[in-house]
Amino acid sequence: MTVDTKARLAGLRERMKAQDVDLVALAPSPHMDWLVGFHPLLCERPCLLLVGPEREAFLMPALNADGSREETEIPFRVWADDVGPKAAFLEALADVGGTTARHVAFDETMRIDFAMLLLDALPEAKRSFTDDTLSYLRMRKDAREYAALKKNALIADKAMQKGFAAMRPGMTEKELAAIIFDEFSAQGAKPEFAVIAAGPNGAFPHHHTGDRQLAEGDAVVMDIGGRIAGFPSDITRMAVVGRPPDGYGQIHTIVERAVQAALKAAKPGALARDVDEAARKVITDAGYGEYFVHRTGHGMGIGGHEPPYITATSDTVLAEGMVFSIEPGIYIPGRFGIRLEDIVILREDGPEILSSLSRDMHVAAD
Amino acid sequence: MTVDTKARLAGLRERMKAQDVDLVALAPSPHMDWLVGFHPLLCERPCLLLVGPEREAFLMPALNADGSREETEIPFRVWADDVGPKAAFLEALADVGGTTARHVAFDETMRIDFAMLLLDALPEAKRSFTDDTLSYLRMRKDAREYAALKKNALIADKAMQKGFAAMRPGMTEKELAAIIFDEFSAQGAKPEFAVIAAGPNGAFPHHHTGDRQLAEGDAVVMDIGGRIAGFPSDITRMAVVGRPPDGYGQIHTIVERAVQAALKAAKPGALARDVDEAARKVITDAGYGEYFVHRTGHGMGIGGHEPPYITATSDTVLAEGMVFSIEPGIYIPGRFGIRLEDIVILREDGPEILSSLSRDMHVAAD
Repeated sequence: MTVDTKARLAGLRERMKAQDVDLVALAPSPHMDWLVGFHPLLCERPCLLLVGPEREAFLMPALNADGSREETEIPFRVWADDVGPKAAFLEALADVGGTTARHVAFDETMRIDFAMLLLDALPEAKRSFTDDTLSYLRMRKDAREYAALKKNALIADKAMQKGFAAMRPGMTEKELAAIIFDEFSAQGAKPEFAVIAAGPNGAFPHHHTGDRQLAEGDAVVMDIGGRIAGFPSDITRMAVVGRPPDGYGQIHTIVERAVQAALKAAKPGALARDVDEAARKVITDAGYGEYFVHRTGHGMGIGGHEPPYITATSDTVLAEGMVFSIEPGIYIPGRFGIRLEDIVILREDGPEILSSLSRDMHVAAD
Repeated sequence: MTVDTKARLAGLRERMKAQDVDLVALAPSPHMDWLVGFHPLLCERPCLLLVGPEREAFLMPALNADGSREETEIPFRVWADDVGPKAAFLEALADVGGTTARHVAFDETMRIDFAMLLLDALPEAKRSFTDDTLSYLRMRKDAREYAALKKNALIADKAMQKGFAAMRPGMTEKELAAIIFDEFSAQGAKPEFAVIAAGPNGAFPHHHTGDRQLAEGDAVVMDIGGRIAGFPSDITRMAVVGRPPDGYGQIHTIVERAVQAALKAAKPGALARDVDEAARKVITDAGYGEYFVHRTGHGMGIGGHEPPYITATSDTVLAEGMVFSIEPGIYIPGRFGIRLEDIVILREDGPEILSSLSRDMHVAAD
């Protein structure tokens, strides 16, 4: 991944100053990818990137030093297995002026054993996560990030259409997922997931695609995504095999109205929870509130799930360039589920949907 | 994975008592797999298994509750996206009698944002990792675990032999890796990694298998593994294409002697660092100490890398039933690397090697 690390570090330091954060600590993670364009292997050996007010340094396991040296010019403090990480960590901390840090922003994905090095060295420091610093910047996509996500959304559209065209009664969920995976591969993307949840399985939002055969009258949740050039895709559409189950059409319409309400509420300056509330209100007013068991959406960039999270409790102020999913759903235990998901980028006047696929249900021949 | 959760919980509580630990907190991880036979999806939603002196409870995201309910009878405190995890966490903590815990053992792989729930609730509690409790038990493999690892080691032997038979000058590292992957698949295992590092690439212990073509005179490090029935394999052997490079034979012999020394030192009652020291001494005495840049080995069970770690600083007392790698290496920058790796299980009278493959170098036709 090619990133302008110098510019991103400068932007990060501006945010650190504004937020009174004097140390940002990153683990090998998408945060690190975003900032420096790569991350060393994540294993049990502590590896950190420390960013202080003026300098930055890696705590680097010896085993990964040579390979990582080719990726970055940031200084390393290297530790070998026969000595352990502690001394090198304290040196790196001193290098970046972090020994007296008063407020540390942790990469929230960091392993607790890596984090303990910092917690032990800075027991009195205020602790927060990256929301107001690195994630704040990462949420605002630039033109290059938009282009990559848009291109990938269209690949996912093609994979979804391939799935629509191929689905037949008697085919298993896994078989349908494999066809969709093949289409991602054919388009040059790495297939990442295809949740195919037919009939009553659709009532589990995180169903494990399995051996159930598609049957006449099944509503089928299809939630798929692949990765290309470092960026993911994520889209959910509905299909029905033959005649929809009783009540399907009415509930599909309610979910579609919830999507529309969320799209309308998603404006620069609105809070993430306003968008969640808009979708939730439609579903609750229709009497299905208890069946909408998850948040309305999640951010997406190099991470498949990243801020902003569109939840009932999020105070994140939405801004131009943010990319997130809108994906309300209604799950009727024992019968079926309906979820409709689009990824949007927030523009000055509202959201632009990346997919070009209608949210109408696909009807498969029975 | 089928595990006797009741027996493992009883064993864990015995260790907790002996170590004066009154709360063990696990994330979705191999630790959780070992204890309860599954783990819910690991994502950004906090999910924990809390084990107190008498009771246990899950902090469970609503989205994963139904799927997880099929896997375990342990009580859940479920939280939904529109409320957040905090209240449910405090309830789960109270359920297991953890509200006044004085010593918490953390799953060392836990995300810091999950762990912060505990750190905030129990700011005064002593913090440690699972080494003396869950990992202590997990290190000691039972007959079923041994059988699974042994079976899988023999599959890896076959994959290695397939690679030996297929390698030819002009073939790329990636092509050779693909042949090895196919053999894992043919044996019913899921290929996990094949580090193929030819010529100077072999000097990077964590080389990314690439497009280098095998050439006459290349020493080739082959470090491969696959997974079946929940258990991994891991083996490293050496091959040379045509005539070995100058000095190869002498260094191979030194590494082999280091393996032998480690095998001899690995006895119940010895410390892990004794084994590291035995291997390291051979290499250091031969003048190559600075080129042995990593630890001598790592434990293996359901985790590919797990305790006991065979390092220069580990005070872990080795015991019967422990399974770990012995894998010294010498890496000559710009020329080649040599690593020989075997997985062993510790018996009363010393280590039993799981592989049945000689550690001699394979000579490929040039």
